[in-house]
Amino acid sequence: MFSELHPFMDYALVLAKKAELQGEVPVGAVLVYNDKIILENHNKMRQNNNPLAHAELLLLQEAYSFLKTYYLSQCSLFVTLEPCGMCATAVALSRLKAVYFGAYDPKHGGIEHGARVFDKEQNFFKPKTVVAGVRAYHCENILKNFFSYRRG
Amino acid sequence: MFSELHPFMDYALVLAKKAELQGEVPVGAVLVYNDKIILENHNKMRQNNNPLAHAELLLLQEAYSFLKTYYLSQCSLFVTLEPCGMCATAVALSRLKAVYFGAYDPKHGGIEHGARVFDKEQNFFKPKTVVAGVRAYHCENILKNFFSYRRG
Repeated sequence: MFSELHPFMDYALVLAKKAELQGEVPVGAVLVYNDKIILENHNKMRQNNNPLAHAELLLLQEAYSFLKTYYLSQCSLFVTLEPCGMCATAVALSRLKAVYFGAYDPKHGGIEHGARVFDKEQNFFKPKTVVAGVRAYHCENILKNFFSYRRG
Repeated sequence: MFSELHPFMDYALVLAKKAELQGEVPVGAVLVYNDKIILENHNKMRQNNNPLAHAELLLLQEAYSFLKTYYLSQCSLFVTLEPCGMCATAVALSRLKAVYFGAYDPKHGGIEHGARVFDKEQNFFKPKTVVAGVRAYHCENILKNFFSYRRG
């Protein structure tokens, strides 16, 4: 099932690498519409001097400027790391149809950990499809290498 | 204990009223530093054509441009409605020292409902002070009036 998702996640990994080269925590994300990548972004907390500048939130904000539509219900998000509670709720508020993420994030993740945003019974939209662990090995490795280099 | 908080929430209520006059769901928020209001905002989902344009997120994003500091650990947020999971996580990521909110939001709230962001054991910052129900009657009323008028 995963094989056809790899090209999108592979491109998100390229963006994560781009983030790393800029000294950012290496997380990349793409927005897919009609089987095509229409927008891309990566973490920019450092360069924007803003702890909210997560790849996914930047991507969604850009989408609202770019697409001129109130909801993004025809779009899917591919992101190399499990979204945090902020980004997962932003995904729900945006009514994305699907989210695919790579590495799990036990510390800050908000889908399979912590806030578990999509598991709540509250009356708001959740993506129909949520797939974890797409290209997980590569997505984790780029983060591990970044932090081990920093700590070394 | 609430009395000294009223002026800040009262001003947030003025902003909620301003939002209402612009056709927005009436929620207002202020950021307080050293006992002074330094920034203000209100919901702008409609005028920004963006379901993420919540008063609190706009306020925090503005703060990063305005204050040129990476964290907002000396600041307190006053908002007329319980923050959602997105805004509550943004508060945690921003390391605000305190959050005061007015009306409870069983449908979308992320502090006392749903994601309950600050109750999680994950290793990230939570405000030392969280006070619910400040000027709750007035904060609820402005929302009730808005929705009953819309539905009427």
